[in-house]
Amino acid sequence: MNTHSPLANITIVLKDTRTPANIGSVARCMANTGLRYLALVNPPVDPDNQAGKLAAGADGILAQASRHASLAEAIAGHGLVIGTSRHGGRLRQNVRTPRDMAANAVPLLSRNRIAIVFGNEINGLENQDLDLCQEIIAIPSDEAFPSLNLSHAVMVIAYELFLAGRTAPPLAPMDLATSEDLERFLAHLQTLLVNAGFFGQEQPERLMRTFRQIFGRARLSARDVSILRGVISAFDRSTH
Amino acid sequence: MNTHSPLANITIVLKDTRTPANIGSVARCMANTGLRYLALVNPPVDPDNQAGKLAAGADGILAQASRHASLAEAIAGHGLVIGTSRHGGRLRQNVRTPRDMAANAVPLLSRNRIAIVFGNEINGLENQDLDLCQEIIAIPSDEAFPSLNLSHAVMVIAYELFLAGRTAPPLAPMDLATSEDLERFLAHLQTLLVNAGFFGQEQPERLMRTFRQIFGRARLSARDVSILRGVISAFDRSTH
Repeated sequence: MNTHSPLANITIVLKDTRTPANIGSVARCMANTGLRYLALVNPPVDPDNQAGKLAAGADGILAQASRHASLAEAIAGHGLVIGTSRHGGRLRQNVRTPRDMAANAVPLLSRNRIAIVFGNEINGLENQDLDLCQEIIAIPSDEAFPSLNLSHAVMVIAYELFLAGRTAPPLAPMDLATSEDLERFLAHLQTLLVNAGFFGQEQPERLMRTFRQIFGRARLSARDVSILRGVISAFDRSTH
Repeated sequence: MNTHSPLANITIVLKDTRTPANIGSVARCMANTGLRYLALVNPPVDPDNQAGKLAAGADGILAQASRHASLAEAIAGHGLVIGTSRHGGRLRQNVRTPRDMAANAVPLLSRNRIAIVFGNEINGLENQDLDLCQEIIAIPSDEAFPSLNLSHAVMVIAYELFLAGRTAPPLAPMDLATSEDLERFLAHLQTLLVNAGFFGQEQPERLMRTFRQIFGRARLSARDVSILRGVISAFDRSTH
């Protein structure tokens, strides 16, 4: 990751986490998405280094993680503190989605640090924690089974931040065939089908329209069209 | 979840998973996002019920999960098979993002089953698995640390499907050809091309992979496949 990435101004804060393995899983999510600062409020003891095992190589994030006795201490110096809640919009107003939050937060990162706070695995954040947050987000989920694993919740939010933080287009550019290429191929195909007696008494237009739709949906590249023409030419030669 | 939710037509396929706990974590993600059908290809033994522990209540999905000896068996009857890759756009063209995939897949769910296939924790899907997929998706991630935990990868994709399922406009339903239909057509085409001497000294695999991608992207209906087979049969007859 670029050292100057705006996402370097985000801190993931885990408060009262109970299971060390979850902290390691969170570190892995963070490394996957270019986040780097982890703050632990009242973390559990971890004699077997479960966190390290689950980090799967994201050890640097664990080693650098700051430790705090209170949430207030962990969020000091941050311009925006965002709390995560499982309760969606039912109990609180002004609950944002992760996507909406990310779109709004990323532009602020050029000049501000932002903390995103997650509570423990059983109860989430308490009301007194949420009172320290200027914004609350909830991850959309099935009402019948709404409780996400802690690291899954971090993953979804980190993923939205990562996407919002990227400026590059997501796909490698692709050279599509021109419509002229496609029409030349279709004309060639029609000629060969007529010669092969494929249409019998029928007019070819209706079937050729179906072909145009099929190959149009396929978003053919110039290379694809060239291959397809090679194929029908091979059939053509084999008939002589 | 509504019994008639379109997301009920999605199957999450896990192939060669090594860690039973990951299967449980995947079941939890699925319950969080309204998915329900899990298919396991060559799953690991799990004497301590680690999967059940990590499922955190999503036991029904585990209990209902189907077990298969091959990927081909697991995806039988699905109209669209989507493979997941860690390689992003580097090695393959036409790799979609999860968001783009979800927007395109959800409207198809009213009349078609869609399988989304995940490989093992170390290597992901092999090329021979990806050859059975009509579409490939990769989760955007930091190039310096791109490998997501298996259940985190499922979470991101399930989250995108859940969001797309809530917002998708109703589109005209379309009956896709099944993957078996498509494979039969491709096998027929390959035979005819071999007989026509099209490949010369070359192995047909690489070109057939291109065809699979072209016709996979085209989202062929059963009627489309029937027409295409008629076309190549006509060519075939005309060569005798």
